[in-house]
Parts: sequence; C-alpha cells; structure tokens
Amino acid sequence: MKELPVSQAYRLLEPGPIVFVTTSQNGKPNIMTMGFHMMIQHDPPLIGCIIGPWDHSYSALRATGECVIAIPTVDLAEKVVDIGNCSGEAVEKFERFGLTPQPARDVAAPLIKECIANIECRVTDTRLVDEYSMFILEAYRIRVNADRKERRTLHHRGDGSFTVDGDVLDLRERMVKWRHLQR
Amino acid sequence: MKELPVSQAYRLLEPGPIVFVTTSQNGKPNIMTMGFHMMIQHDPPLIGCIIGPWDHSYSALRATGECVIAIPTVDLAEKVVDIGNCSGEAVEKFERFGLTPQPARDVAAPLIKECIANIECRVTDTRLVDEYSMFILEAYRIRVNADRKERRTLHHRGDGSFTVDGDVLDLRERMVKWRHLQR
Repeated sequence: MKELPVSQAYRLLEPGPIVFVTTSQNGKPNIMTMGFHMMIQHDPPLIGCIIGPWDHSYSALRATGECVIAIPTVDLAEKVVDIGNCSGEAVEKFERFGLTPQPARDVAAPLIKECIANIECRVTDTRLVDEYSMFILEAYRIRVNADRKERRTLHHRGDGSFTVDGDVLDLRERMVKWRHLQR
Repeated sequence: MKELPVSQAYRLLEPGPIVFVTTSQNGKPNIMTMGFHMMIQHDPPLIGCIIGPWDHSYSALRATGECVIAIPTVDLAEKVVDIGNCSGEAVEKFERFGLTPQPARDVAAPLIKECIANIECRVTDTRLVDEYSMFILEAYRIRVNADRKERRTLHHRGDGSFTVDGDVLDLRERMVKWRHLQR
C-alpha cells in the first residue's frame, strides 16, 4: 500500500462514502460499519464521527483512543451490510468475513487489506461523546491501495440501499477560491 | 414541493451529497456551498456542519440561528462551484446565479426551488463553534421536489471535481438490524 500525505484525508472522506472503522483492545480486533462522519478541518485533518454505546467498538474506542477508518469499494458491499448487522461481542469479524488485518504504524487498530484506503486516527476530543456519541479524530497516516482496479465507493442511503459512484465531473478549473487545496 | 417526514433527513444526508446552505439576515438572503456535514442522530434529526468565519453566511447563522440545507443535483454543478467561489458580501447570489428563493415555513432562510430537497434547520448547539466552526442543527421540516426528473446528486472530491451518483445497489433485505429505520 502506498502512503498518501495525511493532509489529503478530505479527498477520501468529503465525498461521503460508507466506511469501516477498526479498533483493537487487548489484542482483539473488531470492525464496524459507519455512515455518520464528516471532515471537520482540512489540515491537520480532523474528522467527526458518531459511534455510540450501542456499537461494540465504542468501548474499545473510548479505552484506547485509536481507530482506523477503512474505505470499502462496491465489491465489498455485502460485507458492509453484514458487518453492520452483527456484533463484535459475538463474532470475530475479520475471520467471519474473510478480511485481512494488517498492522498499522501509529495505532494498534488494524488496517483492512481489501479496502482502497486506510486512515489511522486518534481520538482528539471527547466533549460531545456523552451527549451525541460524537468523537473527534485526528488522522495521522493514510495508506491507499493504488493497484486496485475497482475504485467505486458506496454512499449509504440510510436504509440498506447504496448509491454507487458514477461518473466524475471535473470542474477544477472553475474552483478559483479553493485552488490552494489542489495538489 | 411535497413534504417528507422530518425523521427522514438521514435518507437525504447520509449519502454525503454536496449541499447549499441558505441564510437570511435583515431581509437579505444568501447561499453558500457546503461539503463538511454529517448526520449526528436519526430522530429527532441532528446534523453537524462546518461553517466558519471565512464564510459570509457564518455571521447570519450565528445571529439568526436558522438556515436551510438545500440539495442540488448534477444539472446545478457549475452553480455549486461558482456559488462557493464568491462571497455574499459582494454578490446577491440568488439573482446572480438564477436560483429562485421560496419562503420556508419554520425559518426565515429561503428554500431553493431548483433543488431536489430543502431541509429547514435551527442551530441547537454552538459549543464547538469557536474551536471547530462546528454547528449542530436540528431539522424541522423537509420539502422534496418529487417531480424532478434529474435526481443524481454530487459528491465533492475536495478539489473541484465531483462524483456523480451512479447505480443504486439494493441490499435492504440483508439489513436486519436496522430494519426499524425503513419505511
């Protein structure tokens, strides 16, 4: 996997893909599916996300303060739903769903080899966790799978149906004000 | 425009479309483009979004506590970029960009007739505004344009290019755990 500058996290998350979140506690890795997340700040990259006590990953995230956001593509769609439909309390999800954990560098939570991108994150603000289950994460490292042929991500319509990425419309020439963001 | 139950806001926002935000202060309406937003809670629907002092809409939003989130489709792509590239301080954007303001019911900010959906919102929590420019909004009313033929939304890749909605993948049958969300 190739490293992408961490300042480029918004290129991956602003489009709003459904993502996986991995955690690891006491050597036990887990995966959840997450649809409620956003970029908060470009650089240093801050990410807001909703992970609640109803998620098994919640306690690991609170205890360790570390996670990986992994972005799946359309070929993993059934796993996206099925992983969201069972609990890490009962299921070892990497094994059950045939996903390959790989060691991250800055956090104990594993990368998911089959995903197109993995973002290593640490919790940086927990002030809104009790009230809204909102964690604020800082991204520390991004690895992307540049060789992957299937690159279309999924956008959850909230009910188990997903919009798959279609065409790309390139209006970069018009985007004068934000041009400093382009690389 | 047809009314949709406000509890369905997540159906519109969880997929992560680029959106417009309208405000109105002292009878002067404005529009901005916004890419950093997320659902926080299904029902009552709470939305997190990043609107900073660098946005002309920021002061109107702070002063009035009201806005409308309007969702454009692909035919409005150039307006999405151009509206993000100029300031309401210098430009009357509804007029300049040929968009039609329509009165909302619960807020002073206008709906945008040309958009596929309009969500009337009030600011409910400003605790993270100073540090992260993050507003927490509650949605009060949704109007959708059910007659519109073009329904494909845009996902901002952060650099002025956009992924257009492609096919829909229906995995609702697999989504056992979240079935109570389906209507």
